[in-house]
Amino acid sequence: MDRILCGVDIGGTKLAIGLVTLEGRVIDSVTLYDHAQKDAQGVIAEIVGTVRELLERSGFGEEQLLGIGVGTAGHLRFREGVLITMSNLRGFKNYPLRATLQSHFKVPVHVDNDANAQAYGEYRYGAGRGFQDLVFMTVSTQIGAGVILGGRLFRGMTGTAGEIGHTIVEPHSDFLCPCGNRGCLIAVASGVALPSVFQKKLDAGMRSKAAERAAAERGEFSLSAVDGAFIKQGLDAGDEICVDIVKDYSDYIGIGVYNIFQVFNPQAVVLGGGLLNWGNEFFDRIKVRFSSLARDMLFDPMEIVREELGASAGVVGAASLVLEEA
Amino acid sequence: MDRILCGVDIGGTKLAIGLVTLEGRVIDSVTLYDHAQKDAQGVIAEIVGTVRELLERSGFGEEQLLGIGVGTAGHLRFREGVLITMSNLRGFKNYPLRATLQSHFKVPVHVDNDANAQAYGEYRYGAGRGFQDLVFMTVSTQIGAGVILGGRLFRGMTGTAGEIGHTIVEPHSDFLCPCGNRGCLIAVASGVALPSVFQKKLDAGMRSKAAERAAAERGEFSLSAVDGAFIKQGLDAGDEICVDIVKDYSDYIGIGVYNIFQVFNPQAVVLGGGLLNWGNEFFDRIKVRFSSLARDMLFDPMEIVREELGASAGVVGAASLVLEEA
Repeated sequence: MDRILCGVDIGGTKLAIGLVTLEGRVIDSVTLYDHAQKDAQGVIAEIVGTVRELLERSGFGEEQLLGIGVGTAGHLRFREGVLITMSNLRGFKNYPLRATLQSHFKVPVHVDNDANAQAYGEYRYGAGRGFQDLVFMTVSTQIGAGVILGGRLFRGMTGTAGEIGHTIVEPHSDFLCPCGNRGCLIAVASGVALPSVFQKKLDAGMRSKAAERAAAERGEFSLSAVDGAFIKQGLDAGDEICVDIVKDYSDYIGIGVYNIFQVFNPQAVVLGGGLLNWGNEFFDRIKVRFSSLARDMLFDPMEIVREELGASAGVVGAASLVLEEA
Repeated sequence: MDRILCGVDIGGTKLAIGLVTLEGRVIDSVTLYDHAQKDAQGVIAEIVGTVRELLERSGFGEEQLLGIGVGTAGHLRFREGVLITMSNLRGFKNYPLRATLQSHFKVPVHVDNDANAQAYGEYRYGAGRGFQDLVFMTVSTQIGAGVILGGRLFRGMTGTAGEIGHTIVEPHSDFLCPCGNRGCLIAVASGVALPSVFQKKLDAGMRSKAAERAAAERGEFSLSAVDGAFIKQGLDAGDEICVDIVKDYSDYIGIGVYNIFQVFNPQAVVLGGGLLNWGNEFFDRIKVRFSSLARDMLFDPMEIVREELGASAGVVGAASLVLEEA
C-alpha cells in the first residue's frame, strides 16, 4: 500500500490543503480564500471536507495517510496542540486545534506553527537538506523562524521558540511592531512596516517617482498601497525611496542573520518569504551585511541559502510535520 | 572508593583549580594570578602541577577523579578541544588544549568555554536546578551565555553558540565592542563599555560627584577607573551619572533577556557576573524591562533568577562539565 502525507496550511488570508508524497511532491491540492469569514467550526468543517474530497478524487483511502500535518499562523501551545491566538481568525482564541481535527480522523494529526512547518519542509525536502542544525527565517508580511537542532524542530517551553521577528534590534527606533514594541525586526524590516518606513522617507524629503506616478494615475497616493510588490516595481525602476528601503531592510535582515549566528551557531540559515522576491541584490546585500559583522568570529562557514519549496512550501511543510514526530 | 571531580577555570586574569565533590562542594582549591605572564607550556605545567598538588594534600589519588573539567575564556572549537583565540593569553592561539592536558592524565579531560561551564554548574548545582531548558547569562567585563536545552549544553556547529553578548541591539549606537562591531550588547552594557558610556554622559553635560571626588583625591580623574565597583559606589551615593548608567544597562540587559525569551522560549534565565553586584534594584529593573516587552507574548511564566554558585562558580562549573558528557 502506498503511503502518503496530508498537509494543511492555515494562513490569515488563505487556507491550502494538499496530498503529498513521502518524497515531498504535491499530488493534488486546493487553496481556499473564504475561511477568514467563517467561525472555528466552519473552518474545521472546511478542512475535514477538503481532505476527504482530495483523498476521494485522487483515489486514496484515509488508511493510506501516514498522518495529517497542520501548519498554522498564530501562537501555538505545542504540546497541547492549542492555538493561543491568531489575529486574522477570531474564532481560534485558545482553540484546541489538534484535538478537534483529530476527532475527525483515525490517522495522527500533528499541529505546529507555519514557520516551524516550513523550516522542517526545507530541512526534509528543500534548501535545508543535509544540515542537522539550521534556522529557517521567513521575511514576509511578518518575520518568523523555525529552528532545527540535531534534525528535530526546537520549540522551547510553550512552543514559541524561534520568534526572531520579535527580537529587538533598534530600541530607539521610530517604528512600532503590531505587538506594541519598538524596534523589533518586524517593526523595522517586514511587510507590515513598509507603509510607515515609506512615510518616514517621504517626510524626510526623499522623492518617490513610484508614489508620484501612482498619485497621477489614481488621483491620490495611499500608503496602504506600499507592499512588497510596490517596492519591487520601484526598485526595478530605480525609485529613490524604494531602493533605499531595500538597502535598509537588507541591513536589518543581515543583523537578524548575524544574531541567529551568534546565538545558534548553526550550519545554515535558509531565507524565505515574499520579500525575498525583491531579488538577488537584496539577498546578496543580506549576505554581505552578515559577513561584515561576523568577520573573524566565523570559524566555520555558515551557509546562507534561499528556500527551495516555493509556492508549495506551506502544504509540503505542513505535511512534513508528520515525519518530524515519527 | 569515593569519586570526586576536578575543575580548572582559565580566565584572563586568574587561574582557579579545585577539587569538587559530586554534590558540587569545593573540597580544596587554589587561585593563581601569574599565568598570564607564562607561555602555553608554562600554563599547562602550572595546571598539571596544581592538580597533582591538590590531590596529594587532600589525600586523593588520580584514579578517584571521575574526570577533569576545564572552563576557559576565549573561543573554543568544542569537538576538537582546540582554543581558537584567547585575547589575554597570547600563547593559546589554535592551541590543542584538551589533547595537551589529556596527555598528562589518565582520567578524561573535558574542555568548554567558561560561560558554558558556569551554565552547566548552575543547572546541576545552583539556580538552574529543576529546569531542563535554561539560558545562563553573565554580565561582567564581557557578556556571554551558556544554553542548556533538554538538560544538555547546546553548542552549535563550531561550539560558539550562545554568544548573546555579540548580538546587535543598537546598530546606530555610538559604542563599539572590542570585536569591532557597533551596538552589540557588549558595546552598550558590559564592563568594558563603562569608560566610554561614562565619558559620553560627561560630554553630554551630566555631572558626577564620584568623578569630581576622585579628581580631588588623586589630582586627576581617569576614565580607566570607571569599572563595576566604581559605578556601585556612585550608585549607592546617588551619583547622577552612575545612577543613569545602571538604568541604561538594566534596559539593555532586559532587552537581552527578552531576545533570549523570543528565540529560546526557555523555562528560566539565570543571570550572573560581576555587574549583578550592583544590587537588587539593577536586577529588579532588568526583570521589569523584560516584562514590559514580553507582556501578552509570555504564555507560560519564565523564571529570571540570580546565579547561586557565587565565588566558586568557575571551579564548580568547570568540574560539572565532567558530568555533562557522562
